[in-house]
Amino acid sequence: MTPMPDRHASEPVSKSRLRLWLRILSASRHIEGELRERLRVEFATTLPRFDVMSALYRNEDGLKMSALSGVLKVSNGNVTGIVDRLVDDGLVLREQVEGDRRSFRARLTQRGREEFERQAVAHEAWIDELLSGVEQDRAWRLSDLLGDVAHRPGRKG
Amino acid sequence: MTPMPDRHASEPVSKSRLRLWLRILSASRHIEGELRERLRVEFATTLPRFDVMSALYRNEDGLKMSALSGVLKVSNGNVTGIVDRLVDDGLVLREQVEGDRRSFRARLTQRGREEFERQAVAHEAWIDELLSGVEQDRAWRLSDLLGDVAHRPGRKG
Repeated sequence: MTPMPDRHASEPVSKSRLRLWLRILSASRHIEGELRERLRVEFATTLPRFDVMSALYRNEDGLKMSALSGVLKVSNGNVTGIVDRLVDDGLVLREQVEGDRRSFRARLTQRGREEFERQAVAHEAWIDELLSGVEQDRAWRLSDLLGDVAHRPGRKG
Repeated sequence: MTPMPDRHASEPVSKSRLRLWLRILSASRHIEGELRERLRVEFATTLPRFDVMSALYRNEDGLKMSALSGVLKVSNGNVTGIVDRLVDDGLVLREQVEGDRRSFRARLTQRGREEFERQAVAHEAWIDELLSGVEQDRAWRLSDLLGDVAHRPGRKG
């Protein structure tokens, strides 16, 4: 069912790359849609909020708001609004950065860490289920081939 | 530099799938971010608007609003608002569906078709540039391996 390379042997490389992009986009949108729905239903949370908590979980000493903005730069989240809500919910503390009165750092509370751990366990199980058609060998090969697709600067010259 | 499969030979398959998902997401967000920016700068348009025009371009007789909603269901676009703007801009016509007074169909105008063609040419060139590090053979193998990742129903039982 999947197209074989030799069917496309004479196509321009731009068409092959466009097809690849549409496949990546389709996979990504399908899975993201499922994750958004499940985060909403199971944890009454959102994907940008999950992303913020994930970044804070990996940085136990907290992150400056500017660093958090970088984390969310392409997921379209409003970092300030998300952090405000997390503070209201007792999951995040906001602390002034020493030596810079205008700068704040956000850090997960103990309850925030525990809540994120529950979400992360569910998240991994959901991905395992959503990608259950991808056997381990295929997952490895795909990860390997995808490699630096995202990190190439792209722009020439 | 890319991780080799045997480094992960003893990991649970859920970890391999999670790594794959993070690679897909990273590639997708990087490229989507670039596309959003370039659509804005070059064509003063947005990705959901481009997606709507793309769907209408492929369906010359037009699409019902409900079908268009399906196209955008995971890109978070507000179909009605987008179509209203496209109508104001002279790129789309809204027609009543025969035999159903409450139902509307959207269709590209000739100017809408020409405008989308310009955008589609630029879009393909951008993807070609953004994926310029992916040679044709790798693009084929990746497309082939990604295959039905997005179309598996996911839920078990």
